Amino acid sequence: MSSSLPSRVTLVDVGPRDGLQNEKQAVAAAHKIELVQRLQQAGLREIEVTSFVSPKWVPQMADGAEVMAGIARPAGVRHSVLVPNMKGFEAALATRPDEIVVFGAASEAFSQKNINCSIAESIERFAPVTAAAREAGLKVRGAVSCAVACPYEGEIHPDRVELVVRLMKEIGVQHVGIADTIGVGTPRRVQAAMERALKHYPLAEVSGHFHDTYGQSLSNVYACLEMGIASFDASVAGLGGCPYAKGATGNVATEDVVFMLHGLGIETGIDLDALVDTAAWISGVLGRKPVSRVANAMLARRAAA
Amino acid sequence: MSSSLPSRVTLVDVGPRDGLQNEKQAVAAAHKIELVQRLQQAGLREIEVTSFVSPKWVPQMADGAEVMAGIARPAGVRHSVLVPNMKGFEAALATRPDEIVVFGAASEAFSQKNINCSIAESIERFAPVTAAAREAGLKVRGAVSCAVACPYEGEIHPDRVELVVRLMKEIGVQHVGIADTIGVGTPRRVQAAMERALKHYPLAEVSGHFHDTYGQSLSNVYACLEMGIASFDASVAGLGGCPYAKGATGNVATEDVVFMLHGLGIETGIDLDALVDTAAWISGVLGRKPVSRVANAMLARRAAA
Repeated sequence: MSSSLPSRVTLVDVGPRDGLQNEKQAVAAAHKIELVQRLQQAGLREIEVTSFVSPKWVPQMADGAEVMAGIARPAGVRHSVLVPNMKGFEAALATRPDEIVVFGAASEAFSQKNINCSIAESIERFAPVTAAAREAGLKVRGAVSCAVACPYEGEIHPDRVELVVRLMKEIGVQHVGIADTIGVGTPRRVQAAMERALKHYPLAEVSGHFHDTYGQSLSNVYACLEMGIASFDASVAGLGGCPYAKGATGNVATEDVVFMLHGLGIETGIDLDALVDTAAWISGVLGRKPVSRVANAMLARRAAA
Repeated sequence: MSSSLPSRVTLVDVGPRDGLQNEKQAVAAAHKIELVQRLQQAGLREIEVTSFVSPKWVPQMADGAEVMAGIARPAGVRHSVLVPNMKGFEAALATRPDEIVVFGAASEAFSQKNINCSIAESIERFAPVTAAAREAGLKVRGAVSCAVACPYEGEIHPDRVELVVRLMKEIGVQHVGIADTIGVGTPRRVQAAMERALKHYPLAEVSGHFHDTYGQSLSNVYACLEMGIASFDASVAGLGGCPYAKGATGNVATEDVVFMLHGLGIETGIDLDALVDTAAWISGVLGRKPVSRVANAMLARRAAA
C-alpha cells in the first residue's frame, strides 16, 4: 500500500492515431495537425501521430504523410508512427518520425483475424522493419495487444504475453507497451501481464496501454504505478471507440490520467487546463462531448463560473 | 503491490437515495420501489432506500414512508435511511429500517452551507438520534462528507476527518463511511483519510463512498481494498449528479465496482447481468443512458449479439 510511486510519469498521447482511427467520423488532416500542435502546447512530449497502413484497411490514416509534414517538430517532442510492414516503414521513414511502433497480439485468434497471420509470422514480418528502423536511428516500440483478454478467445494467460514480449526482444524491439485492447483488465491481471514484460525489459522500457471500455483503466494505471511503471498511453478526450463493443468508450482519457497523477504528486509536465481546452476543441470537431470525466467536470465548472 | 485483498466485499447501493436525490427528474414512488426490488433480486444485500429530510429541502425524498412501506423486506437484506434530526428519526422509525444514516462534514464551510450549523453542532444534534436509534435496536452509520476536499474550502486535511470520526465514535455511531463528496480524491489522499478512520473504528466498520466526478472512484476503491477495507457505497447506473459541477457524473456505478471486484477474484454475491438490466431499466425511466461504463459496454455487446 505505501510502496513509493514514480516521481515523474511520461504520457504518450495516442489520440491522433489510435483515437481518431477508431472514431466513426473522418477528421481532416488540418484538424489532425492542429490536434498535435495543441497537445504539444499542453506539454505532451510523446505523441503517436499516425500510421502508415494500407488506406484500403485504415482509410482514416491515409493522410499520414500530410499530417507528419504539417506538424511542428519542436526539440524535445517525440513523434511516433505505427507501421505494419516494410512498405509502411519506408513510407513512414520519409516523414522522419522519432519512433516507429510495431505490434503483435498475445492471442492467436486476434492475430489471425486482425492481420491474417500467426503471432510468430507477424513477429518475423517485423524483424526486417525493426532492423531497418534501428539502422536509421529510430527507436522501435512494440505494442502487445490483447495482453489481458481477446475478443475471440477470452482470457489470455500471462505466459502468452511473455512469449510475444520475448519474440519482440529477440528481433530488437526496444520498448514494449502492454495493451488491454478490449478494456476488461483489472489490476491484478494487468500486474500479472506486466510482470512478464518486466522479465525481459527494464522498468523504463515498459508501458501500459489501457482502454476504458469497462471503466477500469485508471485503476490499472494505479496498479502499474505501484510496480514502478512510469509510462502510459492515453488519448485526449478519450478519443476512440471500441470496435468490439460499438458505443462503448475507447482509450483512457489523457486528462483523467493527468488528474490522478497530479493528485498523487507525480509530475507529468502537462498543463491540465490546456489539455481540457484541447479535449473540448477536438470533441467539438467531432460534434460530441468528450468521453473524459475530468474534461466534462472541468468544463461544467467553467460553465458555472 | 501484492498485499492480499479482501476475499469478499459488501456493496451498499445508495442509488435509490443519494442517486435519485441528485437527479434532475423526479421519480415516482412506484419506480423507486421497483428499483429496490430489482436491486435485491440482483443480489444487493444493503440498500440505502430513502431519507426523512424536510420535503422543503429535499422534495425528491418526500415519499420516503411510502417507499419504505412498499418494498419487500426479505431476510438478509438490510435497508437504511438517512435522517437529519429527531423529527426525521421518528418518521423513519415508524417505517422500521434496519439502519439509520447520520452525517457530518469534515469541512466547516460545507457544514454551514449544507445544514446551517457547525460540525460540532451537527454532531451534538445527532447524539440523541444515535442514542434513540440504538435504543430501538437499529444500527447507526455515520457519513463523513468532504473527507478529501470541500467545494468551498478546497483540500481537507486528514486531521479534520479524524476529528469528525472521533466525534461520531463518542456519540455511539457504529460505522463510518468516508465520503469524497466532490470526487476529486486520488488514491493516496483517500488512503490518508481512511487511515484516520481506522484509528477509531475496526476495518469491518469503515467504508468508502466515492463520487466519479473526475473518474477517480475505482482507483480509490482499489486503494482501499489494499488497506483491507471491504465495504463501499455505489449507485446502480451511476445515478446521481454532482451539485458542485452540473452535468458531471455522480456516485461510482455499482456495475463498475462489481466488474472490478469480480475481476480481482473478490466475491460480492451480485449478479452483474441482472444489475446491468436494472441499470438499463432505471436509466430508461429517467430517459437517458446509464453513466456506467460497464453497463454501456455490456449493453452495446448485447445489442451486437
